[in-house]
Amino acid sequence: MIIIMKTGASQKQIEDVEKYLQGLGFNTHPIYGEVKTVVGAVGDKRLAKTENIIHMEGVENIVPIMSPYKLVGRELIHENSIVDAGGVPIGGKELVVMAGPCAVEDEEQLMEVAEKIKETGAKILRGGAFKPRTSPYSFQGLEEEGLKLLAKVGKATGLKIVTEVVDTRDVELVSQYVDILQVGARSMQNFKLLSECGKSDKPVLLKRGLSATIEEWLMAAEYILSAGNPNVILCERGIRTFETATRNTLDINAIPVAKELTHLPIIVDPSHATGNWRWVDAVSKASIAAGADGLMIEVHPDPSHAASDGQQSLKPEKFAQLMKALKPIAQAVDREI
Amino acid sequence: MIIIMKTGASQKQIEDVEKYLQGLGFNTHPIYGEVKTVVGAVGDKRLAKTENIIHMEGVENIVPIMSPYKLVGRELIHENSIVDAGGVPIGGKELVVMAGPCAVEDEEQLMEVAEKIKETGAKILRGGAFKPRTSPYSFQGLEEEGLKLLAKVGKATGLKIVTEVVDTRDVELVSQYVDILQVGARSMQNFKLLSECGKSDKPVLLKRGLSATIEEWLMAAEYILSAGNPNVILCERGIRTFETATRNTLDINAIPVAKELTHLPIIVDPSHATGNWRWVDAVSKASIAAGADGLMIEVHPDPSHAASDGQQSLKPEKFAQLMKALKPIAQAVDREI
Amino acid sequence: MIIIMKTGASQKQIEDVEKYLQGLGFNTHPIYGEVKTVVGAVGDKRLAKTENIIHMEGVENIVPIMSPYKLVGRELIHENSIVDAGGVPIGGKELVVMAGPCAVEDEEQLMEVAEKIKETGAKILRGGAFKPRTSPYSFQGLEEEGLKLLAKVGKATGLKIVTEVVDTRDVELVSQYVDILQVGARSMQNFKLLSECGKSDKPVLLKRGLSATIEEWLMAAEYILSAGNPNVILCERGIRTFETATRNTLDINAIPVAKELTHLPIIVDPSHATGNWRWVDAVSKASIAAGADGLMIEVHPDPSHAASDGQQSLKPEKFAQLMKALKPIAQAVDREI
Amino acid sequence: MIIIMKTGASQKQIEDVEKYLQGLGFNTHPIYGEVKTVVGAVGDKRLAKTENIIHMEGVENIVPIMSPYKLVGRELIHENSIVDAGGVPIGGKELVVMAGPCAVEDEEQLMEVAEKIKETGAKILRGGAFKPRTSPYSFQGLEEEGLKLLAKVGKATGLKIVTEVVDTRDVELVSQYVDILQVGARSMQNFKLLSECGKSDKPVLLKRGLSATIEEWLMAAEYILSAGNPNVILCERGIRTFETATRNTLDINAIPVAKELTHLPIIVDPSHATGNWRWVDAVSKASIAAGADGLMIEVHPDPSHAASDGQQSLKPEKFAQLMKALKPIAQAVDREI
Repeated sequence: MIIIMKTGASQKQIEDVEKYLQGLGFNTHPIYGEVKTVVGAVGDKRLAKTENIIHMEGVENIVPIMSPYKLVGRELIHENSIVDAGGVPIGGKELVVMAGPCAVEDEEQLMEVAEKIKETGAKILRGGAFKPRTSPYSFQGLEEEGLKLLAKVGKATGLKIVTEVVDTRDVELVSQYVDILQVGARSMQNFKLLSECGKSDKPVLLKRGLSATIEEWLMAAEYILSAGNPNVILCERGIRTFETATRNTLDINAIPVAKELTHLPIIVDPSHATGNWRWVDAVSKASIAAGADGLMIEVHPDPSHAASDGQQSLKPEKFAQLMKALKPIAQAVDREI
Repeated sequence: MIIIMKTGASQKQIEDVEKYLQGLGFNTHPIYGEVKTVVGAVGDKRLAKTENIIHMEGVENIVPIMSPYKLVGRELIHENSIVDAGGVPIGGKELVVMAGPCAVEDEEQLMEVAEKIKETGAKILRGGAFKPRTSPYSFQGLEEEGLKLLAKVGKATGLKIVTEVVDTRDVELVSQYVDILQVGARSMQNFKLLSECGKSDKPVLLKRGLSATIEEWLMAAEYILSAGNPNVILCERGIRTFETATRNTLDINAIPVAKELTHLPIIVDPSHATGNWRWVDAVSKASIAAGADGLMIEVHPDPSHAASDGQQSLKPEKFAQLMKALKPIAQAVDREI
Repeated sequence: MIIIMKTGASQKQIEDVEKYLQGLGFNTHPIYGEVKTVVGAVGDKRLAKTENIIHMEGVENIVPIMSPYKLVGRELIHENSIVDAGGVPIGGKELVVMAGPCAVEDEEQLMEVAEKIKETGAKILRGGAFKPRTSPYSFQGLEEEGLKLLAKVGKATGLKIVTEVVDTRDVELVSQYVDILQVGARSMQNFKLLSECGKSDKPVLLKRGLSATIEEWLMAAEYILSAGNPNVILCERGIRTFETATRNTLDINAIPVAKELTHLPIIVDPSHATGNWRWVDAVSKASIAAGADGLMIEVHPDPSHAASDGQQSLKPEKFAQLMKALKPIAQAVDREI
Repeated sequence: MIIIMKTGASQKQIEDVEKYLQGLGFNTHPIYGEVKTVVGAVGDKRLAKTENIIHMEGVENIVPIMSPYKLVGRELIHENSIVDAGGVPIGGKELVVMAGPCAVEDEEQLMEVAEKIKETGAKILRGGAFKPRTSPYSFQGLEEEGLKLLAKVGKATGLKIVTEVVDTRDVELVSQYVDILQVGARSMQNFKLLSECGKSDKPVLLKRGLSATIEEWLMAAEYILSAGNPNVILCERGIRTFETATRNTLDINAIPVAKELTHLPIIVDPSHATGNWRWVDAVSKASIAAGADGLMIEVHPDPSHAASDGQQSLKPEKFAQLMKALKPIAQAVDREI
């Protein structure tokens, strides 16, 4: 950590900062510049309460040197982690595709989609049972009934199941039915929910928050890992920007950046990242080319009658075409699908 | 609702849209333009599942005409609502100021701050017992112990208490100790938490999410009202933008806009909106001048040793000066403080 | 165009709006809803001064139906346009790669880079002679001397030349030396510069502004086309968002969206879009997979001594590897490189 | 400047960085941490080419210590600067209000507005003669004819004149007619235009760019000062964010932040910052309360027939009411109006 002192900071102020740092267990190294002085603080004290130094007399700014996360970073674990989702490895050479309807509506719909996506090579079925909706008047999901349908269809088809959990009170319940717990974008900083998921033995798919920096996203993953669950899959699903032509802006840069910073696998949700099925094809290809470990795509047999997010769902035929088109891209970046 | 058809949409496609809308109970009125056709759908069907029309052949876009909220809007309730927080009215002619430390640390600290802010005319004591922190390694609050201290100090001083609740499981517990439940920015779209707060008999202070539009914020309030609790206080606390000089960007525009759209009171949190105590003074004055119904300000007797957010906390003397300086501004906009 | 009237708008107010619209040459079609009335205005009057209707009594909002551009849209020209840049077609089956240093520094440097990029299959040499720099104290470019070097190296190698023009006074001068005029992100809404480039007989590479919507970007292109120059190449170079891990956020969604809205070719600048050479590889591949017509990449023989933007420049060897790696991606999306 | 080395950087890499820095004239001070090493570089070398160090082996990041500007900062000039605009001081105790139509339309319109705003105490007349418009089909201004009208009305009323200049070729021409040159938001990083304005003897009103950080805005001002013109007035006019309820988001925080960083006066344009006349009143009051040195407000006698931006223009009566309402706010912050 580096403390930058204000122009004209007094020797006393500099020494007070040094004393404070030493009290926290740091060694200090002041560098006296022509105009400003900086104080280097040596010691890996990630837990030390240093943010308030900004309030000391003569202090202009604090510059952290160490990343704020430990378990998700590449310092301790250098190799890419492979997360096992009910027998399906995520993060290895083989790409993983999760597909299915935004919301679980009924058994017939779910079974139809499940069978169709299975034919294409998708390994994991997605479907919402608890839906976080912007409006209290929108369909909120079938809840436990939906979980049961997911489990049933999963068993029948051999597909693994991922579904969102939105309430700390439901983590245990959802864990009983599914293979992967999904923490949605709006819950990325629901720290109690992260901690509960950290106590589960199921892998956690952690979506990036609408306005979360990559660092905040990794810190959210750190919550889960530090609570005891090492199996986290990151999911980029678009961020909120000024652009209104699309629902969100897919942050494609985040893929190589996250790959550099963390050993955790990262997949992309092109459905939410664009908000329109017409653009899912292009950005799915882009995501794989950029190095993503997989995709999560909304597929619905009859999007114009979907209970939620129909406008961004692919029909099964379009999805099958996309899966085929992804093969040569995967090969080009030395992956399989 | 208006459906905009694509250039070249066929008569059949237009009629299909009309049929679909009529099936939902709307009357339809197509307008055939030189290049494009639009279909007007008449009927107040806020609950109808219309979003998927975007997926129908020939449809380009959907334009809602009605706001998506009912209870928080000005259509049903024209007058400003006044929320009663344990006897303190919020939203009336008298401005309300909430102040206190970011986190409750110990009884002495809390009592010291409480007495000092009371002298200045503040009516409500703030202090976090459950702290949502970006890092799992940061201080997470004293939890129920903190609630007890808050209640004790509240009773001793006569100040009303506001504190954040972050977990659905804690709503009942927190409601027992405090006068106002706070839903934080990161929980603004924790819809289950909103629903739980909607069942409480305590008023709810609803902070705006970091990247929430004003409409989404009002929809979050609608969750609380529609669950049965009409006592919501909105709190603008800065939004996330590209500017890095400040922690957040205070959206001062949001005050007159929200006042126009909703009858609920709105206050401002200048501490989070700036992230630096040096700028709290200026934007507090600005908020009152813009028509806010009050302020929520972090005050700490020794900010450089605060357990959380010390850099944005005012010392009690600075806070007292600010309270004094706000008086003529309040008068200038026909308010009292 | 649709005019949405406020709840409770009077019949007189509705009729006034109709009269105003009729005065502009529109036919009007009011639709009386249960709560609100909307007025449809029929007639393609893109030039009509309708924005001020918002100021009329009883008006809540105006919804445009037609896109504001004509020449760049797909309504008049359905097929993709192919821009001829000194004999190199841009926008056809073959992808085009532009590469070179951020700034032209000296003949030796430029010749070295030019020869190396030519070997890899790049067809166009980029290099800044006029540099728009954030600081007045940074290197501003060799100006006309730089243009001469570019022309000389272009002639010697057969590479076509693209360089930025930043001043209306220089358009003619720059046009004499180069094959493509570049309008930089900071100039995207320098409308006088756009008009001057519209009078040139050279193609124009139009970078997207840091905070420009796709619609504004297309409107900037419309300026050039409407001034008489149909040869515009769009260049996505990242937009400004809250994310600080990267210099900009590459808006990969913009590729399929722009392809849908306009017939103009679109290329991507991964160097500015990421700001770090380490991430250029991944997002270059992503851009081609998403359907871009080409790339513009910064290449410098000795990035740590570059006069500008060294941190985002590839060394020639890395660039050669990337060019090779792009081949199978291009094939996968039915393109050549 | 501090260079942060990567975890595991070799002694050789550290020494290479030191040598490089020493070659630029810096003294170097390495601090060896438990995990990482940082290298402090002492010496005020704002002009040194240090950005490329990021490209050296083993380097993780560079942290500047000094602000990149000199002339606009508070290090050399501690007191607030007062800019003289044709006899009207800007930045002193007395607030200055600039008002008038978005675009100059005709003499009668301009004279009517001028007389009305003069009665209210406004000292400066605004009006666009060269209009930067998003669409090439929108009204682009009366150009020199508009300048002549402004000068005529200015002479007749005694009001000073401010108008925008958008082209380097017009700076001299515009300087002949007006008292203040305005550089618009879209031109804030038109560096050639800034340099031309820096050679003028007229003060320059520098609007903040739509997505400009405060630091970039100050660097734009530095261009003007470093070219010889010390008379710059900053104008906050809203930034671009995700919020769509308003045209822009007024960054009220920018007022105290800019006041801390620079000695230049700063005013606010509430018309563009909100985009809607209904909210101009509230944010004008807020701006004065926050410490702004003045306001620039659009006023039009018949907004629904304005040639440009009618939706955000106040009618003269509303403007007169606002001017009256600002008086007690100004007094409350020890200013006059």
